[in-house]
Amino acid sequence: MQKYEIAVIPGDGIGKEVVPEALKVLETLADIHGGLSFEWTPFPWSCDYYVQHGKMMPDDGIQTLQNFNAIFLGAVGNPQVVPDHISLWGLLINIRREMEQSINIRPARYFKGLQSPLVNPKDFDLIVVRENSEGEYSEVGGRIHKNEDEIAIQNAIFTRKGTERAMRYAFELAQKRRGHVTSATKSNGIVHSMPFWDGVFDEVKKDYSEVETASYHIDALAAFFVSRPQVFDVIVASNLFGDILTDIGGAIMGSIGIAPAANINVNGKYPSMFEPVHGSAPDIYGKGIANPVGQIWTAKMMLDHFGEEELGQHLLDAMESVIGEGIKTVDIGGAATTKEVTEALIQRLKS
Amino acid sequence: MQKYEIAVIPGDGIGKEVVPEALKVLETLADIHGGLSFEWTPFPWSCDYYVQHGKMMPDDGIQTLQNFNAIFLGAVGNPQVVPDHISLWGLLINIRREMEQSINIRPARYFKGLQSPLVNPKDFDLIVVRENSEGEYSEVGGRIHKNEDEIAIQNAIFTRKGTERAMRYAFELAQKRRGHVTSATKSNGIVHSMPFWDGVFDEVKKDYSEVETASYHIDALAAFFVSRPQVFDVIVASNLFGDILTDIGGAIMGSIGIAPAANINVNGKYPSMFEPVHGSAPDIYGKGIANPVGQIWTAKMMLDHFGEEELGQHLLDAMESVIGEGIKTVDIGGAATTKEVTEALIQRLKS
Ligand SMILES: CC(C)[C@H](C(=O)O)[C@@H](O)C(=O)O
Ligand SMILES: CC(C)[C@H](C(=O)O)[C@@H](O)C(=O)O
Repeated sequence: MQKYEIAVIPGDGIGKEVVPEALKVLETLADIHGGLSFEWTPFPWSCDYYVQHGKMMPDDGIQTLQNFNAIFLGAVGNPQVVPDHISLWGLLINIRREMEQSINIRPARYFKGLQSPLVNPKDFDLIVVRENSEGEYSEVGGRIHKNEDEIAIQNAIFTRKGTERAMRYAFELAQKRRGHVTSATKSNGIVHSMPFWDGVFDEVKKDYSEVETASYHIDALAAFFVSRPQVFDVIVASNLFGDILTDIGGAIMGSIGIAPAANINVNGKYPSMFEPVHGSAPDIYGKGIANPVGQIWTAKMMLDHFGEEELGQHLLDAMESVIGEGIKTVDIGGAATTKEVTEALIQRLKS
Repeated sequence: MQKYEIAVIPGDGIGKEVVPEALKVLETLADIHGGLSFEWTPFPWSCDYYVQHGKMMPDDGIQTLQNFNAIFLGAVGNPQVVPDHISLWGLLINIRREMEQSINIRPARYFKGLQSPLVNPKDFDLIVVRENSEGEYSEVGGRIHKNEDEIAIQNAIFTRKGTERAMRYAFELAQKRRGHVTSATKSNGIVHSMPFWDGVFDEVKKDYSEVETASYHIDALAAFFVSRPQVFDVIVASNLFGDILTDIGGAIMGSIGIAPAANINVNGKYPSMFEPVHGSAPDIYGKGIANPVGQIWTAKMMLDHFGEEELGQHLLDAMESVIGEGIKTVDIGGAATTKEVTEALIQRLKS
């Protein structure tokens, strides 16, 4: 009997609605397939927690999380209560960095039954490998002067190690897929970090001569995600560019509410974290209408990560079938509640 | 008789094909409407020029350009010959900065007869005001160490002056339009420059209390450009975010090949520069199939800038009518050549 010990952080807003639903689904899968079980340990770390304790998580939070097989997180952020840069850097980004989850992988693909905003959404199936530990997201920088003379400086920091790690991950993933890697650059406008990025890409690709490559500036690439997403297989991107591309990936699928993500620790020192692309959506929190599919698809990525691909495939098939039947939340053109979607999915898994 | 003296820089690739066509169109308009004339002064500054002279433009280039009423530019870049960061910073970005063209405005709207990749492209009509002089595009930064220890640092620099200038421009434009400004931020991930950006936005908006505002993180905003572009009026964005959003704007119209742009000098010290969103497209250069509409629509922005709105409207109407009839280049689903499109447009203007 394989037991998986999972730290569960619902976080804020709709995270608190969709995480419990995803856990029900995972329990159902474990019951059906047998041979494995989950032990869930919930942590209330969130903006509410901040209000009570003055921090997003306890000082020994990272140490606590270290003992789990994985972290399953909902969403973080409630800007009415805590400014985003404090809540996110105090919890989500803090975990990504401290636990060396240096790669963020986010698939996007045509999903039957979803209303894509695209005329021709068929047959796209791509995955963005996002550098998750450095780049444009850096705490280095600051301000000088006041009022009309004020200046803010933000440093983006790209290391050879971090850049190469993301690229190698992308190439290795492409070898298991359709053998194509696209690099997201902007070396025509951003003249230090991006020519560096291009140089590392040119070197790394030599080690994967059977993988085809392309390189586009982020502006053109974002446009191509809309005009011809079908041409892409694996895309490797910096922290910011990966963030932007994966939201577009969600949009062309039909809703950011279904897009899944995994924050992968590649050195084996810490657990990985599974967290959907969508945020905490305070505007719809509490209405019971949040789309649980992003969180549930994220659960599938966790299963795959554990090597439980059979369960993952079972789950994905059931998701497609339920959505295909029109049992879906309002953001993707349905009328079902969060719980109704999960309930239908659970019935489908059992049948 | 009003005479406009225009510096013409076709630049590289398809810039050399579409600029002459746009000039023909402008000549036709001047003939038809009377009361104005153009004097074109061509400059061969480009990557070819670089090969001959070791620089993209002469040392006194900026001084030379200063004497014109406007600069009309095609596209810059031929990476086979000159690395992009050298060609762009040596010519396009050099002019933007030296001539204090601190605002880049780029409209995107539903265009009858264009095949948008969106199921529902109708009725969107937005304009991106892009900060054009600083931000993420900065020459400040560098590298340290070699090989596996190499690190690249890129500074993004946001001044109060530059940020506020772009925002005020956006608010004033919104007052003449539908009275709504959206700010593109990413303060949840980028913790120095973007909270600064948000703070300036919050202050500036107080001076325009009749204008409604919204603020979205760039990832969500890029997704909204795809899922519901109709909700936007004026969007104000940093240099990089504006760059990305406007390529998506081109994509949802149906092609980046039609998107126009203007680099505006707001202090009256230098001429403004009119340059379409698309690049030099070396892959299709020389085939006679480049879409001239982006360059021609850009010419309309130049006319508007001169206060010649009547001519601008005449041109836009003729463009819509020609495209609506299916006389268009291959990138937007037609079979016409560059010259055929212009010829049809000129006939329409005359009729
Ligand atoms: C060519 C490049 C430097 C330029 C930019 O990013 O500004 C282009 O993409 C644009 O949008 O005008
Ligand atoms: C909330 C925010 C900091 C985060 C990010 O930009 O990384 C989110 O957009 C994401 O993509 O996970």
